[in-house]
Amino acid sequence: MIRKVEFADTDMAGIMHFAHFYRWMEVCEHEFLRSVGLSVHMKTEEGQIGWPRVNTSCHFKRPLRFEDEVEIRLRVREMRDRSIVYAFEFWKEENGERFRAAAGETVAACVRFDPATHAMSPVAIPEAFREKIQALPGEQPSEGGG
Amino acid sequence: MIRKVEFADTDMAGIMHFAHFYRWMEVCEHEFLRSVGLSVHMKTEEGQIGWPRVNTSCHFKRPLRFEDEVEIRLRVREMRDRSIVYAFEFWKEENGERFRAAAGETVAACVRFDPATHAMSPVAIPEAFREKIQALPGEQPSEGGG
Amino acid sequence: MIRKVEFADTDMAGIMHFAHFYRWMEVCEHEFLRSVGLSVHMKTEEGQIGWPRVNTSCHFKRPLRFEDEVEIRLRVREMRDRSIVYAFEFWKEENGERFRAAAGETVAACVRFDPATHAMSPVAIPEAFREKIQALPGEQPSEGGG
Amino acid sequence: MIRKVEFADTDMAGIMHFAHFYRWMEVCEHEFLRSVGLSVHMKTEEGQIGWPRVNTSCHFKRPLRFEDEVEIRLRVREMRDRSIVYAFEFWKEENGERFRAAAGETVAACVRFDPATHAMSPVAIPEAFREKIQALPGEQPSEGGG
Repeated sequence: MIRKVEFADTDMAGIMHFAHFYRWMEVCEHEFLRSVGLSVHMKTEEGQIGWPRVNTSCHFKRPLRFEDEVEIRLRVREMRDRSIVYAFEFWKEENGERFRAAAGETVAACVRFDPATHAMSPVAIPEAFREKIQALPGEQPSEGGG
Repeated sequence: MIRKVEFADTDMAGIMHFAHFYRWMEVCEHEFLRSVGLSVHMKTEEGQIGWPRVNTSCHFKRPLRFEDEVEIRLRVREMRDRSIVYAFEFWKEENGERFRAAAGETVAACVRFDPATHAMSPVAIPEAFREKIQALPGEQPSEGGG
Repeated sequence: MIRKVEFADTDMAGIMHFAHFYRWMEVCEHEFLRSVGLSVHMKTEEGQIGWPRVNTSCHFKRPLRFEDEVEIRLRVREMRDRSIVYAFEFWKEENGERFRAAAGETVAACVRFDPATHAMSPVAIPEAFREKIQALPGEQPSEGGG
Repeated sequence: MIRKVEFADTDMAGIMHFAHFYRWMEVCEHEFLRSVGLSVHMKTEEGQIGWPRVNTSCHFKRPLRFEDEVEIRLRVREMRDRSIVYAFEFWKEENGERFRAAAGETVAACVRFDPATHAMSPVAIPEAFREKIQALPGEQPSEGGG
């Protein structure tokens, strides 16, 4: 996924505010789900499924600046019974050099979601999700993950 | 309502990004509703009531900067059958002088809101709202508003 | 410009939060400037030029929802000595019907900007901007604007 | 620090969007610095000092909802030569029970910051910062840190 740093993403230090890296990780995850015919907000036989975050982290190496074009790469690091671990990298080109500006991780838990009450209860990842993600070439996470 | 400009509110021009003035107007409106015993997200006899914006505008006179303390003042400019017009002012003190940094307006429409489907349909402002707001000293909007 | 409503753009009412319409207007304005070889953050002979907002407004007709694809259209409504008036429309397709979800306006003032102190002073729009924008087919604003 | 979940902080799942936990951690860090007479954006003998994030992470245990009052607690977990490690906890009360909704960590690096070019270079934490933070009762981080 390619994104450009927008004016509203910057702060008074002249760089992209760190919280927006997390927003981009989420967008990248949703683009990934759409690319395999899924959605983060999806009705299945088990009801409405959602993916709240359980853990997120990010390591920032180089700042991003206004109008920078950034490639965000996603890898399914591990598929557990009730959660998926995604790894993200943010790549940027500057003066002909390509470097990793940041790297992050998200653990998204699978929940059944009641749209009326907004109540959530953890569930096993539906087969519809599991099959489509595991069918990806080069995306089969190793046993035990990591 | 008093708010301090936070780091994440600023942009690379070193000032509060203009979209955050709108976020503050909304917070101020919700604080106002709470202050009279109401909430923007409320169950009434007519069902779940919501207040989506129909029109918003803001005039920016002086920039706000990091750590500025800002007073946001709300006035009920007009109460219509199905909407309320709020006026807002942003006041700031600098070098002993007090000035208006911005002024805005919000027209919020009253809707019945279905929490399950998120469908909205316009309704007359429930009496519970109307009475509490009109009872405010100095807040009775003139007939015909404005 | 085409944008998709992201999860983080939505609020608990299940629709795009209104403040994000303003963020999109700004992105659309910056895309427009880039498309004619300019930038919102640009060094000219007159120094660093910036375009803070003086007035912004938006009229909301229909809500936008998660994963909606939205076309944002920009028109230069008026070019004044020291500011530009942009008009925006948000178009969405639903069930084969195409409709305008919102319409907004921005008045952006031209300022000389000191990057070290973040001080701003209003200036006439540099010729480099004026010529490129007026050269656009169909974008020449009428005399007296509107 | 006490914060209330605002409408704009929620997403269509009816809970506070996870990226706002990070925004709140940052606000809490800045409040902390102010409380000991410092600022995140400060001129010292070494020039303008800034604190970009090097690592941030958060573990989410329970969702936060609109109008929830949340206490954010900060602890200086470790003071290194060129960075500070802060730990945060988000506490919420519900039905008379008090629980930790989330816990996070930030590693903020000390940099000298050129306001004109926005260039940053890592520096040792100025003594002015070090002394004030170490003087806090109960805030002296253990040698070797947490």
